[in-house]
Amino acid sequence: MNEKLLGLRCSQCATFFKPDEALYTCPKCKGVLETVYDYEKIEGQFDGEDLWRYRQLLPTTNRTNLWVGRTPLYKSTILNEKLGLDDLWIKDETKNPTHSLKDRASAIVVALAKELGYKTITCASTGNAASSLAGISASEGIESCIFVPENIPLPKLIQLQTFNARVFRIKASYDDCFDLCNRIADKYGWYNRNTAYNPYTLDGKKTVAFEIAEQLKAPDKIFVPVGDGCIIGSVWKGFVEFQKLGLINNLPELVGVQAEGCKPLKDGFDLGKKVPDVAKPSTLAESIAVGKPRNGFMALRDVRKSKGKFVSVSDEEMFEAMKLLGSTTGIFGELAGVASVAAIKKERESNNIDRGERVVGLITGSGLKDIEAAVKLFGKTDLIEADEEKICERIKRMKWHKKNERR
Amino acid sequence: MNEKLLGLRCSQCATFFKPDEALYTCPKCKGVLETVYDYEKIEGQFDGEDLWRYRQLLPTTNRTNLWVGRTPLYKSTILNEKLGLDDLWIKDETKNPTHSLKDRASAIVVALAKELGYKTITCASTGNAASSLAGISASEGIESCIFVPENIPLPKLIQLQTFNARVFRIKASYDDCFDLCNRIADKYGWYNRNTAYNPYTLDGKKTVAFEIAEQLKAPDKIFVPVGDGCIIGSVWKGFVEFQKLGLINNLPELVGVQAEGCKPLKDGFDLGKKVPDVAKPSTLAESIAVGKPRNGFMALRDVRKSKGKFVSVSDEEMFEAMKLLGSTTGIFGELAGVASVAAIKKERESNNIDRGERVVGLITGSGLKDIEAAVKLFGKTDLIEADEEKICERIKRMKWHKKNERR
Repeated sequence: MNEKLLGLRCSQCATFFKPDEALYTCPKCKGVLETVYDYEKIEGQFDGEDLWRYRQLLPTTNRTNLWVGRTPLYKSTILNEKLGLDDLWIKDETKNPTHSLKDRASAIVVALAKELGYKTITCASTGNAASSLAGISASEGIESCIFVPENIPLPKLIQLQTFNARVFRIKASYDDCFDLCNRIADKYGWYNRNTAYNPYTLDGKKTVAFEIAEQLKAPDKIFVPVGDGCIIGSVWKGFVEFQKLGLINNLPELVGVQAEGCKPLKDGFDLGKKVPDVAKPSTLAESIAVGKPRNGFMALRDVRKSKGKFVSVSDEEMFEAMKLLGSTTGIFGELAGVASVAAIKKERESNNIDRGERVVGLITGSGLKDIEAAVKLFGKTDLIEADEEKICERIKRMKWHKKNERR
Repeated sequence: MNEKLLGLRCSQCATFFKPDEALYTCPKCKGVLETVYDYEKIEGQFDGEDLWRYRQLLPTTNRTNLWVGRTPLYKSTILNEKLGLDDLWIKDETKNPTHSLKDRASAIVVALAKELGYKTITCASTGNAASSLAGISASEGIESCIFVPENIPLPKLIQLQTFNARVFRIKASYDDCFDLCNRIADKYGWYNRNTAYNPYTLDGKKTVAFEIAEQLKAPDKIFVPVGDGCIIGSVWKGFVEFQKLGLINNLPELVGVQAEGCKPLKDGFDLGKKVPDVAKPSTLAESIAVGKPRNGFMALRDVRKSKGKFVSVSDEEMFEAMKLLGSTTGIFGELAGVASVAAIKKERESNNIDRGERVVGLITGSGLKDIEAAVKLFGKTDLIEADEEKICERIKRMKWHKKNERR
């Protein structure tokens, strides 16, 4: 383990544990634990290209081989113009090896599992964490056992098979898979990556904030799609740690984005609650369709600390955002992955974002990983005859062709 | 245009043209043209992170914004051990923005289209070039018109829609789409990215060789999936240019990999022909199912010059390679994209590769982009009851669990 890791503090009861005193959640109250490093001993200099660049602030001295992190942060002039903004940036997490942000957490947890001597690692997931854990485990020679609900999108299921994971596709919800996975992992002594259970996933995900901070310092606002609430808590942790190290002065406002059809955190936040209620998900955005947010306490706490807010967007708005993002930046995000863009558009239209504000939107996963949702929304493409004249008539009927002729 | 670009030489009749004397294929014999630079004036120093790092050897002084190129080159200990090799490297082109190597060509061609004042760009494609051109055009504010055959894989079609391309899905083969596209582009004055027609796609794709050469110098052998024959010609051009600049001393042997069900280049090569015959494709590996290789002359010429060869692999062997690659490296390539790995395995088993040889395999596109092919091969995943006891019995029946228990 990294000797600069002092220990773990419970996000709920604040009890402090040394690294060897707690493996998963708080032994006292079951709250999610957060790592504490000896920040005074950490130099604000980093070297290397992928997320292991930040190894001083990661729990393990081991590392993985696949290139995770250091994803592009784009400023698209076209997207800025469309939204009437001057300083909007898009962080493209689809460029990670299994094409979602979850690779950041999986890399850390797999490296740690190897350091601790585990040979099998497990998680329950609706898809992105699953394929990510399976891929990174495969590349490190670790067995993965993955518990997925019946309705996992097909591309994510196929990824699991390609990576030779042991897949348990269960007639059950994600919540039930999660509980089953925890019990079985405990029985067989497998290492458990479950979200809001394994404290070190937060440390993996916080590296996305480090990368943004190195390039832009703290933006005014950062928009994050929220399901369990782990990514948004990690983003906050990342900026706070950089502030502790004196690398940035300010902290961004966090804007958590939920689906209209599943917004227990938004509702809890708006009602001033500390813990969210349970919701029944009704949205095509599978990756944020979490009725019982496992990291809800931390997500609500951190959004409040940041003076931010929660915003909800409809499936229709996410679909529009998918097209808006794709047609202006060439990035194809999944519905949940572009919820950030949908919320930025909505907030801008409501004048809750000023033109000059520095705003970052996280694109958390690739649209290729949930192609069925996109198919439902786009419908079919006409199949046309191979007849040049007819095709040209079709072109003439399109509005754009005149102005785009060169001669 | 780059002032170090002297002109274009026909790969067939060797006539030389200045950059403004030829736009697409050879005005005299319709052969594919190849760029010629003033190599004595080029410094062997490069700076920047994506493929624009090599702008001295690219036709345009313009550039694009999406991060294309600088993809990872991995040495997987696990894969090397499985194949009994010591020095095998995998170049992961799925990390490009639309998840295939084709982004390298699209970036160059779109940058050039903008420099030349075009507002619309077009191509015909079985999928990867299509989605690549559409995505990069969108990010640069250029309209794209894409001609695709009926059987384009769904994820690639959805990418096109997300990127707001004008999609013409035609009841015709790729070959017919290609001809239709050329005629219509000519009529409306659109810029044409078609493979083995636009000479600058080769310059985009050659950057993959530059990256390999910067990291490894010239490997002993490089395995390249081959359809039209453009990537393999580009790879050769890249190494040859680096040799001209004195950056490497040797050149690699090229191994072109074709599907058993569509191998006109392998057959032409083995028969000593200069131009391949036409084949009728019968393979699930869509991206290399090209019956009439448009860059066949150059592909045969360059493989001969390199003292290399062609190898063919069955769909079954590609499927096995998909699993082998995924389960050892965490990279999910499409069938055509992993043909290289299938051929490396086959050649190693036939003792045509020595243990110590430095070998590179190109993974040209992501498996997520042709998920249907993978589904056909993997079949269904069992759906099981949410019953802890039954799941544990299932685990007990699996061979691996005993040796992987920690306690």
